[in-house]
Amino acid sequence: MAVKYELLKKATDSKARLGKLHTPHGVIETPIFMPVGTKATVKTMTPEELKNIGSQIILGNTYHLYLRPGHELIDEAGGLHKFMNWDGPILTDSGGFQVFSLGDLRKISEEGVEFRSHIDGSKHFISPEKSIEIQNALGSDIMMAFDECAPYPSDREYVKNSLERTTRWAKRCKEAHKKTDTQALFGIVQGGMYRDLREQSVEELLELDFPGYAVGGLSVGEPAELMNEVLDYTTPLLPKNKPRYLMGVGSPDYLFEAVIRGIDMADCVLPTRIARNGTVLTSQGKLVVRNAKYKRDFSKLDPECDCYTCKNYSRAYIRHLINVDEILGVRLTTIHNLHFLLKLMENIREAIKDDRLMEYREEFYKKYGYSV
Amino acid sequence: MAVKYELLKKATDSKARLGKLHTPHGVIETPIFMPVGTKATVKTMTPEELKNIGSQIILGNTYHLYLRPGHELIDEAGGLHKFMNWDGPILTDSGGFQVFSLGDLRKISEEGVEFRSHIDGSKHFISPEKSIEIQNALGSDIMMAFDECAPYPSDREYVKNSLERTTRWAKRCKEAHKKTDTQALFGIVQGGMYRDLREQSVEELLELDFPGYAVGGLSVGEPAELMNEVLDYTTPLLPKNKPRYLMGVGSPDYLFEAVIRGIDMADCVLPTRIARNGTVLTSQGKLVVRNAKYKRDFSKLDPECDCYTCKNYSRAYIRHLINVDEILGVRLTTIHNLHFLLKLMENIREAIKDDRLMEYREEFYKKYGYSV
Repeated sequence: MAVKYELLKKATDSKARLGKLHTPHGVIETPIFMPVGTKATVKTMTPEELKNIGSQIILGNTYHLYLRPGHELIDEAGGLHKFMNWDGPILTDSGGFQVFSLGDLRKISEEGVEFRSHIDGSKHFISPEKSIEIQNALGSDIMMAFDECAPYPSDREYVKNSLERTTRWAKRCKEAHKKTDTQALFGIVQGGMYRDLREQSVEELLELDFPGYAVGGLSVGEPAELMNEVLDYTTPLLPKNKPRYLMGVGSPDYLFEAVIRGIDMADCVLPTRIARNGTVLTSQGKLVVRNAKYKRDFSKLDPECDCYTCKNYSRAYIRHLINVDEILGVRLTTIHNLHFLLKLMENIREAIKDDRLMEYREEFYKKYGYSV
Repeated sequence: MAVKYELLKKATDSKARLGKLHTPHGVIETPIFMPVGTKATVKTMTPEELKNIGSQIILGNTYHLYLRPGHELIDEAGGLHKFMNWDGPILTDSGGFQVFSLGDLRKISEEGVEFRSHIDGSKHFISPEKSIEIQNALGSDIMMAFDECAPYPSDREYVKNSLERTTRWAKRCKEAHKKTDTQALFGIVQGGMYRDLREQSVEELLELDFPGYAVGGLSVGEPAELMNEVLDYTTPLLPKNKPRYLMGVGSPDYLFEAVIRGIDMADCVLPTRIARNGTVLTSQGKLVVRNAKYKRDFSKLDPECDCYTCKNYSRAYIRHLINVDEILGVRLTTIHNLHFLLKLMENIREAIKDDRLMEYREEFYKKYGYSV
């Protein structure tokens, strides 16, 4: 088995879990937030900078890497770790979510998905087998099964067909996967916002005995209460001795709500994307540092933060850099935002250890606000 | 006196000089190359990264900083050093070159230059006194006199008028400068490509007794031989006990040619600008790493280089990053290019020390090529 989950402690005040995930490229502490490195780089950051702020595992995107530079090229380079100079664990998605998001540019069949590249319009076909072939070439520690993520809202029948196809595809992924010693393949639970369909999906996937499970099809536009509801009844069905990964979640409040419902891993482009837009996460809530009101504000982004950015630069300086399109500006906001989430998860792990997660959550919301 | 030049050695095989320039923010070794930080940041780089590759002094641009974020704001922040978190020496230009480059947007009179901002068209006026006021607010270690840089080619009469006005402006700058203890003001020799006019300019400026002199009006489109010729007869006229600064030069061969003609300091946006365009300097000459032929080239940018980029990343990876517009790509090429020039200048200083500069220059050209 390529990965192994070690449950260290179950919280008494919620369903939160403290654990360790052993991977071929090192151990990660859970619950964890995973920065996204879509095109073989976490935007603006070097691997050393990622480590300095506490990143333990990062993501790569199969769809993007397949198109550019191509998985064969990365294979020739010695795999994604070596290509991008990151020696820690990597998780790759299956490419499914991205190709489904192409809308008119793709056509789904039982065999797989035919699509046109968003870059040059060229025609491609990704099947479960092809997704695994690509991920095997990339050499990620954790690979994801090729699933169909139903949009929100979708009617019951659509979601049922889609989850059953996801199960059939998961089986084909498992059969295609030849590197089980060095790469773990996770299954993805679908079923939309329908409790019985989530139960059906979990039941079918458990039979395939994956080393980890993701909850997919959430954070796709549904109200936050609905996401929490789905997590409320879905995570308890998942095995205690395996990691649970919530895909596409990265705002502080969503992370809290996911963790107290038993989620161990999450990823999202949010912290890096809003950083490039001049927005930062702080203990007092979001702050749009590019706004004119920070022009002469010589204080740091977050009074409670001790990241590289906050130790060395003022809001006025960062606002100036973003205002004049200087790359250092988005570097500094990216460092800050990723540090903020990674530090938050560290605090969450500490709070679970000290049996005070729900208390810490209340304290946090009092200052940060609560939008879930 | 804010700065003091210490001549350590005169080369025996050329007019090259080895020296030290003492400034309020530290000592720099000359001959030196100065990275340009136009808008209060050397594009893509943090101050720590600049130091790691051996930067000893950087530039700021008065015109750009006056417009955004404004010199009063930087003054409020505690000066440019503090604003951008760089504690080493800073040199600021006078803004003259930039406003003259605005073409139709500016109007020159004896009083100064009226111009419209290239950003929003707003009207501004910079006089010698205003340039000094701005540079005093920025708090640079070395300030430059507000000069008029004649274009190439220009007729004799135009150049003569222009250099004489430059002298009158230099005098006004000196009179306006109130912080002589903490900021040094350098004069700028003009005179175009006319030997007697260069002599006249030097003579007039020497009377004003500046602590350092720049050779201006070169690298403005004239053939390289002509620049060398002007340096050949101009630098010997400058005081031995003061630093000589050649403005706007930064290609390896131009730097060699300037140093052997007695130049101590030089600056240019070339290394950072071509880096953003995917072009790197190597011991074998320039290399356009974004070209398709490097797609599967897993070797480093320069086989002889030990910079952060070359130690950790391949041409194929850097090409990929630049190809998909990832910021890390231009960060890596910028680090490499600046390291290349700073290392070259270090080698040049060593070669002067060892009395083998002309020999080293020949060796270098044999591999790099010679375009001067």
